[in-house]
Amino acid sequence: MSANFPPLARRLDGLQSSAIRDLLKLTSRADLISLAGGLPDAELMPRDRIAVAADAALSDRSRLQYTESPGWGPLREVLAARESGRLGRGVPVEEIFVTHGSQQALSLLSEVLLDPGALVVVEDPAYVGALQVFRAAGARITAVPLDADGMRLDALRELLAAGERPAVVHTVSNFHNPGGVTLSPERRRELANLAEQYGFWIIEGDPYGELWFDRPAPAPVAAYSPNVIRLSSASKILAPSLRVGWMIAPAQVCRAVELLKQGADLCGSALTQQITADLLADTDWLAAHVDSVRQVYGDRARALVDAVRARFGDRVISTDAAGGMFVWVDFADGTDTQALLPQALDAGVAYVPGNAFAVSTDYTRSMRLCFTTSDAATLGEAVDRLSEAHAAVARV
Amino acid sequence: MSANFPPLARRLDGLQSSAIRDLLKLTSRADLISLAGGLPDAELMPRDRIAVAADAALSDRSRLQYTESPGWGPLREVLAARESGRLGRGVPVEEIFVTHGSQQALSLLSEVLLDPGALVVVEDPAYVGALQVFRAAGARITAVPLDADGMRLDALRELLAAGERPAVVHTVSNFHNPGGVTLSPERRRELANLAEQYGFWIIEGDPYGELWFDRPAPAPVAAYSPNVIRLSSASKILAPSLRVGWMIAPAQVCRAVELLKQGADLCGSALTQQITADLLADTDWLAAHVDSVRQVYGDRARALVDAVRARFGDRVISTDAAGGMFVWVDFADGTDTQALLPQALDAGVAYVPGNAFAVSTDYTRSMRLCFTTSDAATLGEAVDRLSEAHAAVARV
Repeated sequence: MSANFPPLARRLDGLQSSAIRDLLKLTSRADLISLAGGLPDAELMPRDRIAVAADAALSDRSRLQYTESPGWGPLREVLAARESGRLGRGVPVEEIFVTHGSQQALSLLSEVLLDPGALVVVEDPAYVGALQVFRAAGARITAVPLDADGMRLDALRELLAAGERPAVVHTVSNFHNPGGVTLSPERRRELANLAEQYGFWIIEGDPYGELWFDRPAPAPVAAYSPNVIRLSSASKILAPSLRVGWMIAPAQVCRAVELLKQGADLCGSALTQQITADLLADTDWLAAHVDSVRQVYGDRARALVDAVRARFGDRVISTDAAGGMFVWVDFADGTDTQALLPQALDAGVAYVPGNAFAVSTDYTRSMRLCFTTSDAATLGEAVDRLSEAHAAVARV
Repeated sequence: MSANFPPLARRLDGLQSSAIRDLLKLTSRADLISLAGGLPDAELMPRDRIAVAADAALSDRSRLQYTESPGWGPLREVLAARESGRLGRGVPVEEIFVTHGSQQALSLLSEVLLDPGALVVVEDPAYVGALQVFRAAGARITAVPLDADGMRLDALRELLAAGERPAVVHTVSNFHNPGGVTLSPERRRELANLAEQYGFWIIEGDPYGELWFDRPAPAPVAAYSPNVIRLSSASKILAPSLRVGWMIAPAQVCRAVELLKQGADLCGSALTQQITADLLADTDWLAAHVDSVRQVYGDRARALVDAVRARFGDRVISTDAAGGMFVWVDFADGTDTQALLPQALDAGVAYVPGNAFAVSTDYTRSMRLCFTTSDAATLGEAVDRLSEAHAAVARV
């Protein structure tokens, strides 16, 4: 800060831009194939259907006005009906709260649920958007590793047995970002039981649940306990620029979030919320649209995983391509993915090194690959380049 | 909270919904004329022009994607050009940050500028959206009264002379909400000088500056010092549901706000930001549109003030109808506006009692009237009803 300006708040001292965002700035080179991003494919977004919905929305001038802080009523009703089906109970609109993307729900919840110093349990590797928010809230953060069935509940039980009492346990239940895995039905039930037994909240982030490739995702953790606050979003199935996410939570939590939303930004956009409601309520169209996204992402995911396994064989362990947007790769041969990155960029391919997502586990030998925005041939070429870079590093 | 649920954060204990929001819930009766609201008139919002811009935006799929946290580049460029004209210097895009309405700018700035316990000086009566945010940030709040020329700088100088050292002074410089007054050019210069002399930030909220009725608003406070962070918005001149506000601030402040915006909600909507950029860049159309809004609001404002003065004579002192959306009325005859309200509601008219905006001054005998959403005849009828209620209370 220039000496001429008044000071900024001290809490900013430790705050840094995420390593991933900084990396993404390096990967906009035209000749680079980036598997580092985390964006859905804009080519698959339903532009024409959104244009029709925008036109319909703009025929009513009230869609230009401020809307209610918890969200535009008819959107909350559509969401309540969808979630009633998912959760197997009638979800009242009072338990639906619309946010500016589900990141805003995380941010407001961190203020609603966490006193400074409260313990938050996250997964390792972690969704960094959640990590950033919990750290900013002054929480104490402990991580529980993932395995092929999602969060390792044996590790969580150990923490609880040692006397730790989390205020919140955060999980990305389906097709984890970055870990690629899905929490098994047995663990969902057990996690919900632990939440009730020990009196903690579960935040279940579920942006990817509808993007399954072979079989639908299991019933949400929220189907097993009212202690679960479930988050999802239109960003991955419709379009991120709608900035529409939502939270399903006990009415008391929704009321507390409403008070904070008023100060944070008053309300969302009645325009993009009506567009979203229109598309979500058009169930035949939506089913066909989401099916086509699943088809394309599924093909890409399989192409990527097949190429990785073909090229690297037993030198790597890769997650299956079961859904979502990401594959997680562990190098069994000890390759340091941070050291590999400059060679990979030289060879024309980018990824995110595992340690960018690490909380307390060492992910030096891991990487996250995103398969959403490249076709199968390009993904094959990306893995060829990665293999070339890997060989060059191995030769050194 | 039900005993079965885990606890919520203790910081929520003192948090309450604003009295004004609660009042507004009472004023949706169809037979009631409400001067209590604070909304622009949806009938004047440029629906057709927005529909054209939405169509154009949706022809580019990248408008469906996530955008940069500081805002969509071309919108920042349009804003930089506009603000360069207003501030009389070349404003670089690094000093422009787009927010989800200017309320979000206030909220993020409270985290960027304020350590817990820091002193914030606000105006009395205060813009309650700012007050709510500064209180939530744990600031110590002191108020300086308004007079016909805006914030009373003699009172601010007294505070400074007594050794008070604010981190932030907040002002609504043009057509104050709720006070109706405009900070004089002489005071703008002096306030800017004090900011540099004593090393504090000024937050200049300016949502209404373009809504002048007889003559343009004076040059912004930000024209006098780089210590000023200037906020404005598309909500009052275009449409609130775009949820587009903006901040003009030193690049260091913008960078700090960017770090917090990433955690708060990642980014705004590329769709509504392109719509906004399109409309703001269409300067001939915009000038004609804003002129027509000024014309309508100006006519309504004059009708309201004339009716108040005709009905109440020297029993009231009303601000002039110079711009913005509000008129502030002080009862010289000692009428308690909180006590009057039930009678007024019975007579079919609503307003906001002055004490809803009070920080440390007594505004028992004041009220805020909003003239934007009723035509001249309806405003006259509203004042008739108010006079009827006033007579009934005076008879008791």
